[in-house]
Amino acid sequence: MARSLGELAALFGCELIGDPSVTVHRVATLAQAGKGDISFSASNAYQEQLRSSTASAVIVRTVDAQMSPVAALIADDPYLVYARVAEVLHPEPEIRPGIHSTAVVSESASISPGAEIAANATVGDDSVIGDGVLVGPGVVIGSRCRVGDGTRLLANSVLVRNVTIGDRCIVHPNAVIGSDGFGNVQGPEGWVKLPQIGGAVVGNDVEVGANTTIDRGALDDTVIGNGVRIDNLVHIAHNVQIGDHTAIAGQVGIAGSTTIGKRCMLAGQAGIVGHIKICDDVIVAGKTVISKNITVPGSYAGSIPGEPDKEWKRKVARFRRLDSLVDRVTALEELAKNDGDK
Amino acid sequence: MARSLGELAALFGCELIGDPSVTVHRVATLAQAGKGDISFSASNAYQEQLRSSTASAVIVRTVDAQMSPVAALIADDPYLVYARVAEVLHPEPEIRPGIHSTAVVSESASISPGAEIAANATVGDDSVIGDGVLVGPGVVIGSRCRVGDGTRLLANSVLVRNVTIGDRCIVHPNAVIGSDGFGNVQGPEGWVKLPQIGGAVVGNDVEVGANTTIDRGALDDTVIGNGVRIDNLVHIAHNVQIGDHTAIAGQVGIAGSTTIGKRCMLAGQAGIVGHIKICDDVIVAGKTVISKNITVPGSYAGSIPGEPDKEWKRKVARFRRLDSLVDRVTALEELAKNDGDK
Amino acid sequence: MARSLGELAALFGCELIGDPSVTVHRVATLAQAGKGDISFSASNAYQEQLRSSTASAVIVRTVDAQMSPVAALIADDPYLVYARVAEVLHPEPEIRPGIHSTAVVSESASISPGAEIAANATVGDDSVIGDGVLVGPGVVIGSRCRVGDGTRLLANSVLVRNVTIGDRCIVHPNAVIGSDGFGNVQGPEGWVKLPQIGGAVVGNDVEVGANTTIDRGALDDTVIGNGVRIDNLVHIAHNVQIGDHTAIAGQVGIAGSTTIGKRCMLAGQAGIVGHIKICDDVIVAGKTVISKNITVPGSYAGSIPGEPDKEWKRKVARFRRLDSLVDRVTALEELAKNDGDK
Repeated sequence: MARSLGELAALFGCELIGDPSVTVHRVATLAQAGKGDISFSASNAYQEQLRSSTASAVIVRTVDAQMSPVAALIADDPYLVYARVAEVLHPEPEIRPGIHSTAVVSESASISPGAEIAANATVGDDSVIGDGVLVGPGVVIGSRCRVGDGTRLLANSVLVRNVTIGDRCIVHPNAVIGSDGFGNVQGPEGWVKLPQIGGAVVGNDVEVGANTTIDRGALDDTVIGNGVRIDNLVHIAHNVQIGDHTAIAGQVGIAGSTTIGKRCMLAGQAGIVGHIKICDDVIVAGKTVISKNITVPGSYAGSIPGEPDKEWKRKVARFRRLDSLVDRVTALEELAKNDGDK
Repeated sequence: MARSLGELAALFGCELIGDPSVTVHRVATLAQAGKGDISFSASNAYQEQLRSSTASAVIVRTVDAQMSPVAALIADDPYLVYARVAEVLHPEPEIRPGIHSTAVVSESASISPGAEIAANATVGDDSVIGDGVLVGPGVVIGSRCRVGDGTRLLANSVLVRNVTIGDRCIVHPNAVIGSDGFGNVQGPEGWVKLPQIGGAVVGNDVEVGANTTIDRGALDDTVIGNGVRIDNLVHIAHNVQIGDHTAIAGQVGIAGSTTIGKRCMLAGQAGIVGHIKICDDVIVAGKTVISKNITVPGSYAGSIPGEPDKEWKRKVARFRRLDSLVDRVTALEELAKNDGDK
Repeated sequence: MARSLGELAALFGCELIGDPSVTVHRVATLAQAGKGDISFSASNAYQEQLRSSTASAVIVRTVDAQMSPVAALIADDPYLVYARVAEVLHPEPEIRPGIHSTAVVSESASISPGAEIAANATVGDDSVIGDGVLVGPGVVIGSRCRVGDGTRLLANSVLVRNVTIGDRCIVHPNAVIGSDGFGNVQGPEGWVKLPQIGGAVVGNDVEVGANTTIDRGALDDTVIGNGVRIDNLVHIAHNVQIGDHTAIAGQVGIAGSTTIGKRCMLAGQAGIVGHIKICDDVIVAGKTVISKNITVPGSYAGSIPGEPDKEWKRKVARFRRLDSLVDRVTALEELAKNDGDK
């Protein structure tokens, strides 16, 4: 979707150096951008690329504006403006309101006339689908779900039941929201399933990654705040609560009844144990295990990067023999003390 | 589904203190339970909440019976009775026997008249679906599968082929059972696929979590015992055998040909390497790697909890320099020995 | 599919000791193979089983040929020939060309008459499906995808959009290729989504495991080379590049913009951080974190196997007190130095 630089400058409140009638239709990297493309530069590291750019326009900081060889939009945060320009130039595909002939919709469901229910999708009893919603091909929505306006449920994703999801969310393919929590009680003849009767409540502007699972609550609800971003293959167990604007990277696991604060960032493969609280503004490094409450904002880590096999094995052997090393140091201390006593 | 306390007491063999005609229709936490709700207290920690409970009834230990302000069912294991009461009050939705008009069923498949084949499901050649089975919306069952009575295959889950699953199981959405094992042989021009011709056999009363994968065997079968509970996003590779009543939490991975005993518990993100044996009654902590046979029941661990970034980095630096620390201690010992020799 | 030993010997260039008219129809382990089965022995460890084999035939090394009690195909690499024989005896089920009446295919899509579009599958606008392709039940192919000849997309897998996949690939159930990368920019009111406008390009002879996710690129493409093998529940982020013939085991995660070389092997649950390069012929052990470029081929490791809980806890305590141990050694060194100075 082409836009003129004048339009973009007005949309995002940028000063424009250059011809406002020039149009761009695509975002691209500084290195690859050509005619019709717009790119950005947000740090000194890219000044050389900026100087030789062949883009139709660039988004730059004030300090870099003079070195641009092409039209420049000036922004305090060029990366952020770039993201917004990208949204304008590359909007999500338009939905096609209506219910596809192969979709199966319960008579008690309520579907906005502005929603698209795509091929082979199903919508269960008493569910409510808002305006501008995409229920993608093969999506299954169970009973008593509510999907807010403008939300997109992509191919083969599932809302199991009792799921409420807000406005403008994206649920990526094969994600599952509202699956049973893992609740089992030991009985004399094996596990007895604890029925999971809570729901899952997802706020507005949330993204749920492909093949991610969010269980519904055991008694109360699992709650995902507004603006939360969840990557692929993430596991969020029953009764977890995630604060607004928290971002969770691929393959993170969060065990049951844990509360995560606002604006946290959990890097890939991190594991958060159950029944703990993590305060706002916490960053957890990749593959880190968090096993206790965190009450102080900041960065937390707990993984050791790999090394060549041999060196690593020697370190592990040393680690395994730490006990004997401590004993040796204690013996030396005893000796030194005895020497001193002489 | 409301029940009177008299009915529940009779069903579960509990002594009842209070009016047997009082009805309850929902389970709830002690703190939130109100009229019509039944809750439970199983430890001293909850005695205060118990004393002020406004539930219609509670399930308690003998020692707590007198302090209950409301009707009380007395049980040796209140949590277990609570789980069973919850099952009675909150049964799974009833199935609607019959084959939906949009389902696609092979002519050679055998479907019990008491089974529900839901919208857009498919059942492949020579597969057999038992009584009371739910084949949920979008579920795909390939060829030569058998599904036992009362089992529920939820939305978009897949039984690939040669899968046998017992009675009263639940397979959660988007789980895959019977996918090809990861079998590849190095050839001169790259990997050659080793055809996976075994099956997957799942016992009775098994739960398989959302987006979990269980591969079928290479030659023999992958086997999941009775009463096994598997959480979401778990990976069980070909030829794995899982003993009865073992519980496996989210994102655990079990590599090929490994045997896990009965009544084991594997916590989240644990990784079990291939071709090993773990005996009965083993508990593995979260994110732990098990790389060798375990022959002694008990608890095993292998992860280090995370800490504030700076402290962790210092520890990692120390760990990396363990070699030099050992050298320094050895030098001190030499010195001490020489001193002693003087 | 039965074959005579004479046929197999000719197909794979093996010398045959025994009757070429004997037919086999199944592969099996040495221990279990009976009449009609063919097995193999590739190492000294199996010589005893070989000597007592009741298979109809075995595939063996030259050195083992004489000890076989049954017909023998002689091969330099018996395991490799076994894999190829298995492919011949156990071919994938034949496809049934044509578009199922319940499939939904865009008018602008191009479907080869030799392709099977199975029940409840959907194919989006401008997508091109090659000859001999299986688009399995419930599969969703979005717009502008290309699927090469002979590729099989199994049940409920999804190609989101802008996905190109080569010839003879297998995409296992519920895998997702072409999902949005995890691209977010911090704005004053929360995350702003960075539109993901690249594609995903998968080479020939690639296998993608069940419930695995491969994101499409942010601007450029995510690229998977020829002959790559990917197991279940693997996460491959946007703009990752994977070299030819690399094998990636279950639950591995590869963060954005990382490049992996050719013929690498990443074991289960390994985590590779973003924006790094790993050269050809690198082996990464299970659960290892790789956080920096690797420029030297070889084996890399970074996890510590678990142990009995108590022993592990003591080691972790020692690890936590490494600082004080270093201080104690330093104090002893000071003391020794002062002693020496006296």
